[in-house]
Amino acid sequence: MDTLFYNVQKKGPICIGLDTAVDYIPESINKQYDCIEDRLFEFNRRIVDSTEDIASAFKVQIAYYEAEGIQGLKAYKRTLDYIRSKKIPLIADVKRGDISKTAQMYAKAHFSGDFEADIITINMYMGSDTLDPYEYYLKSGKGLFVLLKTSNPGSGDIQNLKTDTGEYVYQKMLRLLEKKGNSLIGSSGFSALGAVVGCTHVEDGIAIRTRMKNTFFLIPGYGAQGGTAEDVSNYLIHGNGGVINSSRGIILAYRSEKWKGLEFDEAAREAANDMREKIMNVLKKQEDK
Amino acid sequence: MDTLFYNVQKKGPICIGLDTAVDYIPESINKQYDCIEDRLFEFNRRIVDSTEDIASAFKVQIAYYEAEGIQGLKAYKRTLDYIRSKKIPLIADVKRGDISKTAQMYAKAHFSGDFEADIITINMYMGSDTLDPYEYYLKSGKGLFVLLKTSNPGSGDIQNLKTDTGEYVYQKMLRLLEKKGNSLIGSSGFSALGAVVGCTHVEDGIAIRTRMKNTFFLIPGYGAQGGTAEDVSNYLIHGNGGVINSSRGIILAYRSEKWKGLEFDEAAREAANDMREKIMNVLKKQEDK
Repeated sequence: MDTLFYNVQKKGPICIGLDTAVDYIPESINKQYDCIEDRLFEFNRRIVDSTEDIASAFKVQIAYYEAEGIQGLKAYKRTLDYIRSKKIPLIADVKRGDISKTAQMYAKAHFSGDFEADIITINMYMGSDTLDPYEYYLKSGKGLFVLLKTSNPGSGDIQNLKTDTGEYVYQKMLRLLEKKGNSLIGSSGFSALGAVVGCTHVEDGIAIRTRMKNTFFLIPGYGAQGGTAEDVSNYLIHGNGGVINSSRGIILAYRSEKWKGLEFDEAAREAANDMREKIMNVLKKQEDK
Repeated sequence: MDTLFYNVQKKGPICIGLDTAVDYIPESINKQYDCIEDRLFEFNRRIVDSTEDIASAFKVQIAYYEAEGIQGLKAYKRTLDYIRSKKIPLIADVKRGDISKTAQMYAKAHFSGDFEADIITINMYMGSDTLDPYEYYLKSGKGLFVLLKTSNPGSGDIQNLKTDTGEYVYQKMLRLLEKKGNSLIGSSGFSALGAVVGCTHVEDGIAIRTRMKNTFFLIPGYGAQGGTAEDVSNYLIHGNGGVINSSRGIILAYRSEKWKGLEFDEAAREAANDMREKIMNVLKKQEDK
């Protein structure tokens, strides 16, 4: 999580999401490569190459690769290897959540071997023992983002149930995280145990940020899902302490009116730059105040 | 879910969990096969062959295969194909949970292609929109088991938070499930939308069963985790409406004092038979009353 912090210091809080569906891949790639594995990997490789100086992290959503079976997961592995070879923080968005020996297996799966990532996302509905098997990895430089308050319309169904103490369920989850996270604070001042906090529910986001000063956020919901630069600025502390993810807004930029005619990787670069500028402008205005 | 019901009618409520860790595989397999893919698959194949007349379903826990990377997932695929070729209901314990396009990808991943299963497990902390992309599959004969009340010690951390209406969080989850599940009831009287209800928290289990008469349960926690035949009998309705899973209790039976000296697949068969007998005896006593 420290590496992520120092990256954001240098480059700004942009995370690019490689949610690469097969039908997102343009003809220019498809005619060059026959198999799905190569198509997925080449698309990702070119996005990474064109945006690596803008992105403080890449987030790879495993579901898109799982959907293509063994071939898809081979492309997933190659994408992970490629990003790690560039020394850019790599977030694997796997949202795994299980307990005891099974959780140990997920930790092994995503923090070592073929699918090694730097940080992974975790679902903790099963309880705080979900996190136990990760302790060793968290002390060895790896990180977790635990789902706290997500960006989807239905996120309130469970997360915003009010408990008998007047707190929301996500606030109880927050306490569990704090308890585990406080002993894992690194040189950046942030814990290896981070949280997913969507930017589409700003009131909840501000409440969470006010409470959690040492927790790094993965912030989904920007762009396609409705979050704005003004919204996300509330989630950061002096422009750091979180990364804002955009997936389709970047990797599908080549289909938008604004960047029509550009190659997909050039369009992605323009869109990423545009997103970074918008956010940095809002952050600058805030600091000037 | 109907197929599962009719299987339980014939064979009893036993589900065998193939949580096959590499270090569970005995020397007799390891010396025959060099690569991890073959070792995992052969172990599973022999367990399936020796228990197929006892098990009403097999549950394959994907984490154990993910932990071995591409090779592990190839063994996972072969195991799934093998079980499906036998026409025995196949539960993929993947505990996925995501929303919109990403959830569509998980549905595609686990209900079609390389990793096709009959029923999968789902985590719904993100809200009821987690289920939206599965509707098509649920209407086409596939099923889901949604995590409701899990068997681990920490399951109460979130699931048993009391809400301001006096209900637990899992009871709110239950309402969301019922609402979606009622329109998916098949010829067996059970919905395609089932629930995971661990047998280690019997009071909660009875409360859930009393409320949910049309919901099929996947019941973990038997044996190694402490659940007994008396406990699980409370979760069934005339011996049906649920399957009780045992993983290590079956696949590692060859290491127990009781079945020492038997080959691993013979020991698994003995353990599965033993488990079925114990449960059937309790159920018989109940019906006789």
